[in-house]
Amino acid sequence: MADPHIPRFAPRGSKDAVEEGLAFQPKFDADGLIPAIVTDADTGEVLMFAWMNEEALSLTLATGLGHFWSRSRRALWKKGEESGNTLRLVEMRTDCDQDVVWLRAYVEGDGVACHTGRESCFYRSIPLRGPLMSAVPLLPVVRNPHKG
Amino acid sequence: MADPHIPRFAPRGSKDAVEEGLAFQPKFDADGLIPAIVTDADTGEVLMFAWMNEEALSLTLATGLGHFWSRSRRALWKKGEESGNTLRLVEMRTDCDQDVVWLRAYVEGDGVACHTGRESCFYRSIPLRGPLMSAVPLLPVVRNPHKG
Repeated sequence: MADPHIPRFAPRGSKDAVEEGLAFQPKFDADGLIPAIVTDADTGEVLMFAWMNEEALSLTLATGLGHFWSRSRRALWKKGEESGNTLRLVEMRTDCDQDVVWLRAYVEGDGVACHTGRESCFYRSIPLRGPLMSAVPLLPVVRNPHKG
Repeated sequence: MADPHIPRFAPRGSKDAVEEGLAFQPKFDADGLIPAIVTDADTGEVLMFAWMNEEALSLTLATGLGHFWSRSRRALWKKGEESGNTLRLVEMRTDCDQDVVWLRAYVEGDGVACHTGRESCFYRSIPLRGPLMSAVPLLPVVRNPHKG
């Protein structure tokens, strides 16, 4: 394991360097984490959302397999290490502010991204323009919007 | 504007209620925010990533138009209020933990989601499996992966 005191990524530059430059200067938050959006590389379905620390981001880039930081377990976590449902990346992107990453990936094994056993963690919809009330009902999602 | 002291959403229930229940019990972080992923409703392209406080989430659900909380400006922000590039939602979902929301939307006006003038904020790719070094280069993205 690399020396944790040596930064793995370039320091943040000016706003212009961050937005228009071609050097990766990821911003980690006060807890040392950056949000990661994972979508199905084919369909664009959002599969999961998780966090990476510098080591998880480095390992993901180096191996092409999704690694994350579990905030609840306070531990590095290779997605699918136990279940076999690893995340094989096709592409990783960052946004204008370089404070989030987007992973386009395939879920290997059973093709299940969610710990509840579902393909995607986003299996419930929140009705729009309903009455504003504290008990907003959710609707189970029957099909992936991008599978037609 | 509603009394800010009256919660707009149900309190968090048990792990089972959060994961398997059909009541929306969003989790806001220590700053009172929940992450929001915005994708193009047709293509699945990730357009932007932002944060919502309880009011922004309530307004988004009530109007079907994307509202967010700007952490830098510390202000509620209706996307497109000045530019005309409003976000018209087709669907909103939440994940297993109910601590993130996914907005499937159309960008109105010029169809530009990013403040830099691009359709999506994710216009740069990070090469996978390159040498591990602090100066990771980015690659400009030429086309949307989901536009074929």
